[in-house]
Amino acid sequence: MKKRIGILTSGGDCPGLNAVIRAVVSHATLTYEWEVLGIPYATQGLLERKSEILNVHGLELHGLDPLLSMGGTILGSINKGDTEARAEEAIAGYRELGLDALIAIGGEGSLAILYKLAQKGGWKLVGVPKTIDNDVPFTERSVGFDSAVNTITDALYRLSFTAASHDRVMVVEVMGRDVGHLALHAGIAGGADVILIPEIPYSIAGVCRHIDNLRNQWGRKFAIVVVAEGAKTPDGESRVYTDAHGEVRLRGIGEYITDQIARCSGNHVETRVTVLGHVQRGGTPSALDRLMATAFGKAAVDLVAREQFGQMVAWQNGQVVSVPLEDVFHNSPRPVKPDDFLVQTARGLGVYIGEVAEVES
Amino acid sequence: MKKRIGILTSGGDCPGLNAVIRAVVSHATLTYEWEVLGIPYATQGLLERKSEILNVHGLELHGLDPLLSMGGTILGSINKGDTEARAEEAIAGYRELGLDALIAIGGEGSLAILYKLAQKGGWKLVGVPKTIDNDVPFTERSVGFDSAVNTITDALYRLSFTAASHDRVMVVEVMGRDVGHLALHAGIAGGADVILIPEIPYSIAGVCRHIDNLRNQWGRKFAIVVVAEGAKTPDGESRVYTDAHGEVRLRGIGEYITDQIARCSGNHVETRVTVLGHVQRGGTPSALDRLMATAFGKAAVDLVAREQFGQMVAWQNGQVVSVPLEDVFHNSPRPVKPDDFLVQTARGLGVYIGEVAEVES
Amino acid sequence: MKKRIGILTSGGDCPGLNAVIRAVVSHATLTYEWEVLGIPYATQGLLERKSEILNVHGLELHGLDPLLSMGGTILGSINKGDTEARAEEAIAGYRELGLDALIAIGGEGSLAILYKLAQKGGWKLVGVPKTIDNDVPFTERSVGFDSAVNTITDALYRLSFTAASHDRVMVVEVMGRDVGHLALHAGIAGGADVILIPEIPYSIAGVCRHIDNLRNQWGRKFAIVVVAEGAKTPDGESRVYTDAHGEVRLRGIGEYITDQIARCSGNHVETRVTVLGHVQRGGTPSALDRLMATAFGKAAVDLVAREQFGQMVAWQNGQVVSVPLEDVFHNSPRPVKPDDFLVQTARGLGVYIGEVAEVES
Amino acid sequence: MKKRIGILTSGGDCPGLNAVIRAVVSHATLTYEWEVLGIPYATQGLLERKSEILNVHGLELHGLDPLLSMGGTILGSINKGDTEARAEEAIAGYRELGLDALIAIGGEGSLAILYKLAQKGGWKLVGVPKTIDNDVPFTERSVGFDSAVNTITDALYRLSFTAASHDRVMVVEVMGRDVGHLALHAGIAGGADVILIPEIPYSIAGVCRHIDNLRNQWGRKFAIVVVAEGAKTPDGESRVYTDAHGEVRLRGIGEYITDQIARCSGNHVETRVTVLGHVQRGGTPSALDRLMATAFGKAAVDLVAREQFGQMVAWQNGQVVSVPLEDVFHNSPRPVKPDDFLVQTARGLGVYIGEVAEVES
Repeated sequence: MKKRIGILTSGGDCPGLNAVIRAVVSHATLTYEWEVLGIPYATQGLLERKSEILNVHGLELHGLDPLLSMGGTILGSINKGDTEARAEEAIAGYRELGLDALIAIGGEGSLAILYKLAQKGGWKLVGVPKTIDNDVPFTERSVGFDSAVNTITDALYRLSFTAASHDRVMVVEVMGRDVGHLALHAGIAGGADVILIPEIPYSIAGVCRHIDNLRNQWGRKFAIVVVAEGAKTPDGESRVYTDAHGEVRLRGIGEYITDQIARCSGNHVETRVTVLGHVQRGGTPSALDRLMATAFGKAAVDLVAREQFGQMVAWQNGQVVSVPLEDVFHNSPRPVKPDDFLVQTARGLGVYIGEVAEVES
Repeated sequence: MKKRIGILTSGGDCPGLNAVIRAVVSHATLTYEWEVLGIPYATQGLLERKSEILNVHGLELHGLDPLLSMGGTILGSINKGDTEARAEEAIAGYRELGLDALIAIGGEGSLAILYKLAQKGGWKLVGVPKTIDNDVPFTERSVGFDSAVNTITDALYRLSFTAASHDRVMVVEVMGRDVGHLALHAGIAGGADVILIPEIPYSIAGVCRHIDNLRNQWGRKFAIVVVAEGAKTPDGESRVYTDAHGEVRLRGIGEYITDQIARCSGNHVETRVTVLGHVQRGGTPSALDRLMATAFGKAAVDLVAREQFGQMVAWQNGQVVSVPLEDVFHNSPRPVKPDDFLVQTARGLGVYIGEVAEVES
Repeated sequence: MKKRIGILTSGGDCPGLNAVIRAVVSHATLTYEWEVLGIPYATQGLLERKSEILNVHGLELHGLDPLLSMGGTILGSINKGDTEARAEEAIAGYRELGLDALIAIGGEGSLAILYKLAQKGGWKLVGVPKTIDNDVPFTERSVGFDSAVNTITDALYRLSFTAASHDRVMVVEVMGRDVGHLALHAGIAGGADVILIPEIPYSIAGVCRHIDNLRNQWGRKFAIVVVAEGAKTPDGESRVYTDAHGEVRLRGIGEYITDQIARCSGNHVETRVTVLGHVQRGGTPSALDRLMATAFGKAAVDLVAREQFGQMVAWQNGQVVSVPLEDVFHNSPRPVKPDDFLVQTARGLGVYIGEVAEVES
Repeated sequence: MKKRIGILTSGGDCPGLNAVIRAVVSHATLTYEWEVLGIPYATQGLLERKSEILNVHGLELHGLDPLLSMGGTILGSINKGDTEARAEEAIAGYRELGLDALIAIGGEGSLAILYKLAQKGGWKLVGVPKTIDNDVPFTERSVGFDSAVNTITDALYRLSFTAASHDRVMVVEVMGRDVGHLALHAGIAGGADVILIPEIPYSIAGVCRHIDNLRNQWGRKFAIVVVAEGAKTPDGESRVYTDAHGEVRLRGIGEYITDQIARCSGNHVETRVTVLGHVQRGGTPSALDRLMATAFGKAAVDLVAREQFGQMVAWQNGQVVSVPLEDVFHNSPRPVKPDDFLVQTARGLGVYIGEVAEVES
């Protein structure tokens, strides 16, 4: 039977979303001859009953097909909407658009909201995991993660040379509000000396001692400190302050750490902070993200064809599999485990990555 | 006990080798306080009893540590030596250098030779898989593969624009003498229209029909054809010829395919061939290759520490594990399976990737 | 007065063409409110009376404007057409499309043909120089050159590591049929040991002696040889041969040089050749090419507005100027002068770049 | 006569410094057989009488020569020292190290200080201009500028996709304390909608009106705003505030602009700020910076050989020339002129780049 399926992207954008869209549209139209409706701005499109027919040719620009390599999402996205408050309207939107199924590309938060709507409204939902945080459970990788790790690794490479030229401690704040996968992967790949993540407690004294050792025992006068934006202050010190306009603001953890390092060195060490910010989300997807996005998009369409709904495509052991959204929902987000082999890898190379838990005897 | 361990790189170079060396030297000297001997030019160093002590500082250049990001191998390598013929000498070299263990970074061919020497000579050997071909079994990925896929993907991106501007069929010959992983991964990530690999039979008629369909049914006047250097001529036609100097030469498969496409189009289609060649091996490793190389190097040292010899480190399901070299030896090389999910992914997006096997009823 | 202007791209494609198109369309429509007609496939569009209205929005894809960063040309191009033979038809095409002026983006060959048509047919022509060869006279740079130099420099960087790892002489054939600017610039930027270009005679003995010195006097066992495709064989030896199919073919100069180096070393030196090919034309333009393309496009429109026809925009001393096409025509192509400061720069760093002319006393 | 020359790098680091060092060492030792002394940390090395002999081989790492492609400076640098206060000591350092000449690589500030020392102490000084700000007069380009423009252009490309996906106004603060060359070049090359620089007055109302027009008249819902860190607040509003610790701090202009845009849109427009920071200084030099750095280094050595002191090498009209440091000193820094052709180029494409001066009648 000829189906009409919807596709939307939800949550923060990242490289590879358009590659998923391209694969879904290609496979659904070429192999199954279905109609694919693009829903703009995540569930906002459902609330507003907006959609447009996507076909392979319509995604081209003068015969060229830029979607595989283009960052962001041509469908638009929103981070936080009022979908939960307006669940009935969203559910009705699915019906009114005449959808036979919906493929949603989102992070763990977005997929949870959509899964609840699907349960309530009887949607036929298939999920595709994307997030530069890589905290969606049951999938080794989500779309966008590898690209973001490459971007940060490249930034660390750049900063190393300027740090070394000026004998500086460079603190680099990277994304990761709840989890530290990004900081950990990029920190190792980029040769960081210190990696601070939400999951592992650390002390300023430990950080300073390590930097001191690099200088005095190793003769290396610069250091690279990678800190996830969600890493806590070690002593619970508040980072909230009131600015000149009387507005309450939060100092970034990168700035905090930088100040602390300067302080504990008696200001003898030159420090700088860089907040990488939104460049981490942008750019052309890496080859692995393009490959995985394409395989995910193709597999998501096949799940629809086989009527396997309430599932999320996932990457396990070098293969695309599917897992129940129910399980994803109950196990999110996936944190870095303190005994993760990458944590041990970093420590084995002499990286300070927080306090090592006492081993009970 | 304080050990003296050797490290060598064998076979064709690739990005990430130096990152493995860095991790081995760092972890062995910082954590275990062992001495690490670099053996130059693979087993040639053993035959010639050459080595040099590697320490973390010696690998720096004016305080900077470029090894994580530097392509190639600072130890040098050889593709084919006379080690097998001079096995006794090589074995004696290991003893004379006073090695307690040897960490060898190599592809499936090199690891097989070294494994046989280890068995014969009683070496304590640990292997680290590297190859841009990704044909080492029992590991999802080998060092260098991800970087090479990125390099080729980028090249396909470049060639797409020039192909589209001139309505050309661009044939791109990529590495892969025996297996097609590289062509398959990069072909999908780079948006190829045709992918030809050693493992899957194809026909010139099939290639031409597909290109014809793109033009006439789809209105797309250019095409990108990726062919692995080891893909066979479909009809067994010889590619051997005698050149002007009377020397016997082999025409590349890329050139062959290009001629065939021009011929079957009655020379109405403009064709060009690009042989990517050695650029595929070079350059800065991708973030994933740096991460994996670092984790492999660290894990290889731990295997030595735990006296688990005759093992190869491997990447399975997002973790570093170890597998017996015996098993690797008996299952090499790992081919692309004709029903691989990536083959199906490509076909699902309308890529011609050889003949689909008849399904028996 | 509201004008209708045509725009076309002619000759081999290169990065930055779309950035010129974008600037022309933006400035002409936003500032002057003219209509811009895109002529497809260079003069072929004139012969076939084809065109399409280009507006700023029509060049977008879902609100994004990819033209600034996209390689190739959305108008399509041809290398060699039958325009000269069908001059009257082409001239009539200009009239029948109702053009008030024509902006042509092309290399020295294309601009010459178009200039002659303009003279004959009374076209109001403005030229924009593009070519990765950088052989258009009176302009320091043409669109595409900087991007191609970056691409080749990156390739040389990649090849250096694999050359060094295996003690190889790597011969890299780059574009440049008549002139050696590309080989010279990229050779210096990429750290080549030998640079061979059409303008400067060299000897195989000189090349071999230099490589030998690197090995024996300097202890450096690898070498990078950059050769422009148009470099001649030093002794006039023919590179023509007959292949297995009886077809007459031309061996590339890169292959020739590689054989000669192997031969003069008594096959003791491992050699490899890489023909970079069409990747040199492709990819995202460099920042300088984007900037210059934008400034050229804007300036070309202003020339039309000021009715300064028969001119070509040019880059001189960090500024955009205009020069008569007549002068360009009579001074093409611009070669590398044997006493160019870059030739001297290369020699000053010990690069072999052909024979130094005897200085008369 | 065999000379001993010193070389130092002064001021903020940037890509290409090592390429200059490499060229100086190669040309001075290979061509002239001089001794080259590297002076560490700019004039700090003179004050402390520190130096090390640089030779071509000592700059290699296992036979590889990474200096051409390596960011930063292996000699180290300082931004601000106490050289002016300790002029006599610095002058004596030159003598005590036995220098016959000094090649100094620096920005306009560093070169001015060194020029005064040279005049006072009778140094034989040759300058090489480097700065990502490109504000050294009499040279079209300084080492590091092209690389930084490429880095920022790439960042703008990345941010465009995330801006477009979320309908956001992205404000990007780039380097440029006194001059706006960097913001202007990268803003044009990266397709910015608004460019704010120190040299050109602008109004918040003007910025907001332009963004509003993009949304309401053009249907484009996102915008990219590039602002140089040295751009002033249009109304002279202070950006100084007191933080939670009672420390006086300066809000960045990027943050300021972002707040103003949010405010004038009635917070209906989603805004984000990215401060690119030190990544702009880092990384591998572009091909043009490598080429120019090499030509500059070679030319600086030739100036020493010809005893032309008190000169700075410079890039004019695609050639390396030399200019008197005296003139450089009296004309620094070089600002963006309000009627610069690039300012007009930006305006021609509809970019808001501050208020257009009233033309007197």
